Amino acid sequence: MAGSSFNFEVHAQDPTTSARTSTFHTPHGPVSMPAFMPVGTQGTVKGLTVDMIRATGAEMILGNTYHLALRPGEEIVRELGGLHGFSGWSGPILTDSGGFQLFSLAANTKITEEKAVFRSHIDGNLLELSPKRAVEIQEALGADVAMVLDHVVALPSPPELVREAMERSIRWARRCKAAQTRTDQALFGIVQGGLDAELRVQCAQQLAELELPGYAVGGLSVGEEPAEMYRILEATVPAMPVDRPRYLMGVGRPEDLLEAVRRGIDLFDCVLPTRNGRNGLAFTATGPVRLKNLQHARDPRPLEEGCPCAACLHSRGYLRHLFLANEMLGPILVSLHNLTFYQRLLADARSAIAAGRYGAFADERLRLLRSGSSAADAENG
Amino acid sequence: MAGSSFNFEVHAQDPTTSARTSTFHTPHGPVSMPAFMPVGTQGTVKGLTVDMIRATGAEMILGNTYHLALRPGEEIVRELGGLHGFSGWSGPILTDSGGFQLFSLAANTKITEEKAVFRSHIDGNLLELSPKRAVEIQEALGADVAMVLDHVVALPSPPELVREAMERSIRWARRCKAAQTRTDQALFGIVQGGLDAELRVQCAQQLAELELPGYAVGGLSVGEEPAEMYRILEATVPAMPVDRPRYLMGVGRPEDLLEAVRRGIDLFDCVLPTRNGRNGLAFTATGPVRLKNLQHARDPRPLEEGCPCAACLHSRGYLRHLFLANEMLGPILVSLHNLTFYQRLLADARSAIAAGRYGAFADERLRLLRSGSSAADAENG
Repeated sequence: MAGSSFNFEVHAQDPTTSARTSTFHTPHGPVSMPAFMPVGTQGTVKGLTVDMIRATGAEMILGNTYHLALRPGEEIVRELGGLHGFSGWSGPILTDSGGFQLFSLAANTKITEEKAVFRSHIDGNLLELSPKRAVEIQEALGADVAMVLDHVVALPSPPELVREAMERSIRWARRCKAAQTRTDQALFGIVQGGLDAELRVQCAQQLAELELPGYAVGGLSVGEEPAEMYRILEATVPAMPVDRPRYLMGVGRPEDLLEAVRRGIDLFDCVLPTRNGRNGLAFTATGPVRLKNLQHARDPRPLEEGCPCAACLHSRGYLRHLFLANEMLGPILVSLHNLTFYQRLLADARSAIAAGRYGAFADERLRLLRSGSSAADAENG
Repeated sequence: MAGSSFNFEVHAQDPTTSARTSTFHTPHGPVSMPAFMPVGTQGTVKGLTVDMIRATGAEMILGNTYHLALRPGEEIVRELGGLHGFSGWSGPILTDSGGFQLFSLAANTKITEEKAVFRSHIDGNLLELSPKRAVEIQEALGADVAMVLDHVVALPSPPELVREAMERSIRWARRCKAAQTRTDQALFGIVQGGLDAELRVQCAQQLAELELPGYAVGGLSVGEEPAEMYRILEATVPAMPVDRPRYLMGVGRPEDLLEAVRRGIDLFDCVLPTRNGRNGLAFTATGPVRLKNLQHARDPRPLEEGCPCAACLHSRGYLRHLFLANEMLGPILVSLHNLTFYQRLLADARSAIAAGRYGAFADERLRLLRSGSSAADAENG
């Protein structure tokens, strides 16, 4: 990344795991990694002002190219100051390429070597997305990091389809790199290959030849067992460049973050903390709390002792009332709490890595989380 | 109010109008008047954290007894710290008595001299509210100011019904005062009498004999013309004690506030800034802005130049996008802006009164607001 505004420094390597701490420098400031990006699909992290996002400890957020290109359209975002000016978030931003939404959200997606053709999930209009177009849109959005367009397939899929999509993803990554015109935007590659470790390694190695400033593991968390995902990470990460940030897309639960950091992942995004927050499910160190349950009606305790977020100024009883009374403040506060929980979890992980004791830290946190999961099951029973 | 934690000081009397500035001291701090209370119906000002409410400049908020008694129930609120501890709002709070909701929201309300019987709008349960019960509930909620239970009638109503409801409201006010047990809660009376100036004056005079620490004008803003409301205020306010805060319940539009302050009103509450905010209508000094209109799509300007609120960090184009994309942040930000607008309007009014030029100030602001109303009409045409 010589001569660019991007720089990636690894600070500490945990002695017994693949976990590491690092700083990723971008034109809009540094990101301490391992890091979690709140998802701001439509140019807003649902329910939170930029001050509230910042208060959670987040340094970098994600925007979705597919959604923003459909509404309001990337030209309006560009006119209104790019995604930074538009959303008011002055820190680093990453945009995905739309590849995942072609798979998960668009209707009637048809993928050829040239491009994807699909129908908008908003109005049914017929639209196209090629590697070049994905880069053009992301350059208009103007995030610090853009992602190559990839071909995501369902898991499980026939091996031939998985290989074909992986190989196409590599060719599309080359076309994306060739289409890039901005020098102030980093383009990250995306490793595909389904649950086939060998394909993943091949993909990672071939993408490494493109010398991109960062690499992601894509196409996971699409329904496979967590153990399968961890197995793929174990195989894939060692084949990814050690001197580039490694980003696990769309993952995940707190336990997934702990396991992925252990296997060398530096960056995450996921809708879980905000989506679950809107539904009244709060993350805590001892597992999830389902606020709508009757047992919380008169509970004067905060969601989590010592949590500095605005939700934890209130009792569980009050938060429950907000959900039962259908008040917006419930989703707002619990989204805020959950994002704060994720940021604190990763801050603790960074400290543990720096102290050279990540393995023990992760084991202990996983044990605590599981203790809570059983409590949560019990409270549902 | 000798010997109590309440105290009302009038600071400045405008020379050419009935406008005045004052401070109302409560156990949870002082309120600079004329003041506007954001409405926190269910223990939350919809969409805003307490920090956000405070950032608008609000010093006192309102809670609705009817709603809180139905859900979660006043005993849960009491257990969780009263309305202050429950909502997290540490400043002054006023609760209404439920009288207005018996008229506007409850089903099959039957009012006798003894009490009101009605069905809950939530679950259809048959419930009762008597003057004593209204005081009991409000003492459990523990606001700084409680309101007497009043009998509100539709306007227009037959003169006999208006008189009967007014006279009952006086008898109920006496029963409320007799039922009061807390000494750290001020009980305000409510002047009724419909659009009959003579009835209003009679009511105000008879309530004054109760020597309550504050008085409200109730039963207005129920569909009558603004000019009718102003006429009633002109007749009623002079009959209200000069050394007590005068509260106009449930009012209103920015122009109503300006006209009511001119006629001697000190305190307001209204759902307009938050309800309109949720629907994408923003108040500005030059009239309302309907954010969903196409003309705002590429507008880089904030809602209002110089406004310090979090919404005005953004472009109108961004705010419009939030509403079209159905994002919670739209209602949040425009509620915040509208409440900030109301607080700034009253802060400016207080300065103008202190400077002895309220009449000219109000005229100028009304002219500006009307200039915007025509613009808003044009943009709808």
